[in-house]
Amino acid sequence: MKVVGVIVEYNPFHNGHAYHLDMAKKVTGADVAIAAMSGNFLQRGEPALVSKWTRAKMALLGGVDLVFELPYQFATQKAEVFANGAVSILSSAGCTHLCFGSESGDIDSFYTAIDFLNMHDSEFQKNIRYYLSKGVSYPKALALAFQDVKPGEEMADLSKPNNILGFQYIKSLQRLETSIEAVTVKRKSAEHHDEHFSSATIASATSIRKALFSEQGKLDEVQSLVPESTYRLLVEHFQEFGRFHSWDSYWPYLRYRLITMSPAELAQVYEVEEGLENRLISCALQAASFADFMQMVKTKRYTWTRLQRTCVHILTNTKKAEMKTVTEPNYLRLLGMSERGRDYLRNRKQHFTVPVVSRLSAFKNEQIELDIKSSRVYALGVQPDRHASGIGDEFKQHPIYLPDEK
Amino acid sequence: MKVVGVIVEYNPFHNGHAYHLDMAKKVTGADVAIAAMSGNFLQRGEPALVSKWTRAKMALLGGVDLVFELPYQFATQKAEVFANGAVSILSSAGCTHLCFGSESGDIDSFYTAIDFLNMHDSEFQKNIRYYLSKGVSYPKALALAFQDVKPGEEMADLSKPNNILGFQYIKSLQRLETSIEAVTVKRKSAEHHDEHFSSATIASATSIRKALFSEQGKLDEVQSLVPESTYRLLVEHFQEFGRFHSWDSYWPYLRYRLITMSPAELAQVYEVEEGLENRLISCALQAASFADFMQMVKTKRYTWTRLQRTCVHILTNTKKAEMKTVTEPNYLRLLGMSERGRDYLRNRKQHFTVPVVSRLSAFKNEQIELDIKSSRVYALGVQPDRHASGIGDEFKQHPIYLPDEK
Repeated sequence: MKVVGVIVEYNPFHNGHAYHLDMAKKVTGADVAIAAMSGNFLQRGEPALVSKWTRAKMALLGGVDLVFELPYQFATQKAEVFANGAVSILSSAGCTHLCFGSESGDIDSFYTAIDFLNMHDSEFQKNIRYYLSKGVSYPKALALAFQDVKPGEEMADLSKPNNILGFQYIKSLQRLETSIEAVTVKRKSAEHHDEHFSSATIASATSIRKALFSEQGKLDEVQSLVPESTYRLLVEHFQEFGRFHSWDSYWPYLRYRLITMSPAELAQVYEVEEGLENRLISCALQAASFADFMQMVKTKRYTWTRLQRTCVHILTNTKKAEMKTVTEPNYLRLLGMSERGRDYLRNRKQHFTVPVVSRLSAFKNEQIELDIKSSRVYALGVQPDRHASGIGDEFKQHPIYLPDEK
Repeated sequence: MKVVGVIVEYNPFHNGHAYHLDMAKKVTGADVAIAAMSGNFLQRGEPALVSKWTRAKMALLGGVDLVFELPYQFATQKAEVFANGAVSILSSAGCTHLCFGSESGDIDSFYTAIDFLNMHDSEFQKNIRYYLSKGVSYPKALALAFQDVKPGEEMADLSKPNNILGFQYIKSLQRLETSIEAVTVKRKSAEHHDEHFSSATIASATSIRKALFSEQGKLDEVQSLVPESTYRLLVEHFQEFGRFHSWDSYWPYLRYRLITMSPAELAQVYEVEEGLENRLISCALQAASFADFMQMVKTKRYTWTRLQRTCVHILTNTKKAEMKTVTEPNYLRLLGMSERGRDYLRNRKQHFTVPVVSRLSAFKNEQIELDIKSSRVYALGVQPDRHASGIGDEFKQHPIYLPDEK
């Protein structure tokens, strides 16, 4: 039996994702597709547009059979930790293949690059340290250091964002010593961060979010760029809550926390380091909005996403000590399943290496406490006054089940 | 020279306060009147309707010559600590008299009660412990214990709220060994907590606030109950901000903090004791409003005001360690002065026992940091999105000066 895994955020699930998923099943001949999906806060340090439950629905309607949550502890981290967590989940769930999108589209080019870098490791690491010492961010230093070791044409270009992710996935596969086979599909859209629609039906999630956050809330404008099911779910969310989740909704809370914390207390928060605490507090006192705050805090030393992730940890009050408990997810939090996914679970879950969590009440675990807390905070992002009976209550939510249409 | 001190909250300054102030000056023959006034958060554990700056203006327009802020560390405490802080401020500022309102109206009745209780101290304390062990609140235990020692008719009835305050003021005068002479003026209004207007022009601050918070924002209804100057300032505030400060505005922040704090972290907050932290967190997850939350949290063991004060400390993130730095205010934070007040300061402040703080930038002190932090939090209670250039910025605010009309 072939089981393909994908590592996703689906923020939101769009035509490019649908294409990748179809190709992933096609090229691997998989019977079942499993997604390791970030929860409510994402790797770029942003709240997801819509909740993980709505995004799990999008995934199921788009053809995924099982959606497992990538826990907060991995989802809100740099690429390396993110990749480790996601690959570990796919491995625990019995995947035989991992399929990722890349600018390269050629899986051999990744292995060649990895072998080459292993051979030139000391020079590569020295270059990275050199660029870091010049005050640039880590991803930038990595890209520059990579170019300096003069990679061949046959290697994946690690200065491209999706190639870097793929590179990290393969390194995780090796590190975790799984038997999963990696495959890659060339991305159909333009650059990951391209903000302008590049074609009639394929656009980056970034450009879709930009349209959704524009002043008029241009839902119509994204209709051609996402599957009908995604569009319907976006409309439903907007009708219910009147807005999509964005940092703007959380800014009052972030600011409130920053202006009531002592620097010493703030320094206990994960990723608040090197005196950043004083800078964060003094900017919070001045800034008029989250965008304004980020502009003030930003330095060459930190990437925008690294700083946004730090803000997520401050918002959720996640301490350094809480993020150091484990190196791999030790549960599979089930967000959704198709009929095929349910059958797969029934037959296979006794062979899984970690427990599947369908109901929170039956499971106690330090790591999952972070997921619960982050969901409560996430819920404050829309209509905070309407929580008559418990906010962001993960205990009441059951996995979404999508039976086959008869 | 005679200088009369009053201990006030002026939330808001009303006709009853104006009457008391006139009488205080008259019966003492004072040349100068000084108020020790709570800052933005009050002894009952509530945010003040309008900021301490607006309330200082009300006080000056009502006939006070100097307004000093009772620091957060004393203003948000039980009667005994509140009284100590306020009496210490009046003493530091050179007051010769302290005038308070009481149900009794007879100063001798207080001294008689104090002497009597000193004589029956062991029985009195035993009674208090007995009632506390029955699970009632401290003020209630005090009142019951007082009745049990069979006080004479000639003693102030300490089961009345303003008599208890007066009792604490006099005990503070004795404890601090000041030479200040205490006088009392019989209160003109009905009971302190009377919610219904008791006469055409005198009503309790509680009933005035109730009218201001009613759905229609009945400013007109309070017009006859407050001086014209207070009315004007209330209207100005309402026109600028569209609401008065109340717990409702802070509830989203309080809830957010409670749902993101661990019990251990919450237990570090001042007055969070005896496992209250778990109760507070679980109620915050369920409650739909602050009123709802308080109803859930309330037990016989704690008074409503004690619990509200605890909520203020959680809101401002004030730790136990921060509240134990000093036993008396070690500065006089000047909020406002009349021309007469300014002259008095000029001539006398070199004799004051603690420094007068007119500009924050020139003064560093742990205690005043609490005042600064609480002002920043307080500012979030109205239009939190309009803080383009610094929120609750105490550094930009100068003392209010009210020159004589020529």
